[in-house]
Amino acid sequence: MSLEGLSINFATVRQGGDFGAIVDACLAHGITAISPWREQVHGVGLAEAARIVERNGLRLSGHCRGGFFPAPDAEGRRLAIEDNKRAVDEAAAMKADCLVLVVGGLPAGSRDLKGARQMVEDGMAELLPYARAAGVPLAIEPLHPFYAADRACFNTLKQSLDLCDRLGSGTGVAIDVYHVWWDPELEEQVARAGRNGQILAHHICDWLVPTTDPLNDRGMMGDGVIDLKAFRAMIEAAGFHGPQEVEIFSHRWQARPVDEVLATVVERFKTVC
Amino acid sequence: MSLEGLSINFATVRQGGDFGAIVDACLAHGITAISPWREQVHGVGLAEAARIVERNGLRLSGHCRGGFFPAPDAEGRRLAIEDNKRAVDEAAAMKADCLVLVVGGLPAGSRDLKGARQMVEDGMAELLPYARAAGVPLAIEPLHPFYAADRACFNTLKQSLDLCDRLGSGTGVAIDVYHVWWDPELEEQVARAGRNGQILAHHICDWLVPTTDPLNDRGMMGDGVIDLKAFRAMIEAAGFHGPQEVEIFSHRWQARPVDEVLATVVERFKTVC
Repeated sequence: MSLEGLSINFATVRQGGDFGAIVDACLAHGITAISPWREQVHGVGLAEAARIVERNGLRLSGHCRGGFFPAPDAEGRRLAIEDNKRAVDEAAAMKADCLVLVVGGLPAGSRDLKGARQMVEDGMAELLPYARAAGVPLAIEPLHPFYAADRACFNTLKQSLDLCDRLGSGTGVAIDVYHVWWDPELEEQVARAGRNGQILAHHICDWLVPTTDPLNDRGMMGDGVIDLKAFRAMIEAAGFHGPQEVEIFSHRWQARPVDEVLATVVERFKTVC
Repeated sequence: MSLEGLSINFATVRQGGDFGAIVDACLAHGITAISPWREQVHGVGLAEAARIVERNGLRLSGHCRGGFFPAPDAEGRRLAIEDNKRAVDEAAAMKADCLVLVVGGLPAGSRDLKGARQMVEDGMAELLPYARAAGVPLAIEPLHPFYAADRACFNTLKQSLDLCDRLGSGTGVAIDVYHVWWDPELEEQVARAGRNGQILAHHICDWLVPTTDPLNDRGMMGDGVIDLKAFRAMIEAAGFHGPQEVEIFSHRWQARPVDEVLATVVERFKTVC
């Protein structure tokens, strides 16, 4: 099985040093698709990161991440837009497939979930012309409802795709199995996204039972309860054939050597994905 | 403000001793609606529990709990039905408003979420004639998607109400703010449930930011991000005027004296609910 369909989100191996060091580790395992985080790009500088990407013929399945649009006041929301424009610039310079958006949750002190959702819609609408001009698709990543308050108030595919429909071209979704595997409407919404060309990324990991930490106990593929082969078949049936991007936030795996993590990822990718 | 609209789920004060002791603590605070758990009823025996309920004119806003229908084999599913019938008997003996169902998650070793959901539907269909004959409404409690794998594979109001519609009379939902507050379709589904007389219970607590434990870090009303007054207004607009049942699974509150917990519950009920 070729590893062309495998991408490594750098959160999975953030213990591996700077941008260049993580790229080298990926290449050593035959992996040529990546998805870095902004601070890792900033660490070496955008120009150097883009050179590394080009020199090694790497594909960016996404750039992580923009978003966090809600803020208590207009100035906070304006600053968020400005920061998102820089993220768009970075994604463009590295020719990323998309800019992944973790859209943000409730502003500090707020209980107004609807208001926060409106701030996301307004923020994306303002950012979108800039992203279109740069040729960078914006990928809403619906996050698991567990994160509705503090990370992303878009929590289902349907809700996110409805927003994409309102915003129009240049928008879509990043479908992470961890966030959506439980959704009773998963199949119909994935099919809908595919029909409309709105699947921009496919992230994988696994859901552990029990999950002991809400943030950092995601599982390695095969160690949990998600039927990953069936999930991928559904994604491909919907017309998306881009890489499966491995994004594992895990205290356990972060404590292991990067080479061990990547070797395990490759083995699991070949057997259970 | 009268406390008639306030019910205490015994999980909130499980440190308070046996069934009778917890009832006494509730009465001391003017609380006359309760929702006990089966093991607390079994602890004193059903006949004694029913006597305590009758003698004190208590209202049971629910009996906790039936459910857990999925199992790896037919014998396991049959045993679950039998156990649920006993739970129906208990609810009937104590004249509970409903039997609350935590329907169960994936059978051990399974990744077949659809199959588990079918087992729930089949189990409820089998239990329902018995419950109808006993005059005990079955309340599906859609649980937060965080619990889809190990506690309940029904995770939204829409999904649960669709099942109620298929099953027919004698079924409805227990709407717990903790599990559904994030749902983008909350308003329309609450209204739908109200139109069809399917709201059987309303549970309250709060969602803390951050939530540090997936199971036992629910918040006291007012300490989190849920707009409880707006939520209750929505429930009443849908036609449900039964008690607000306080169910707080929390290591923090379980470590406090029962009188302190109940005094806090009463104060918050009067101010933020």
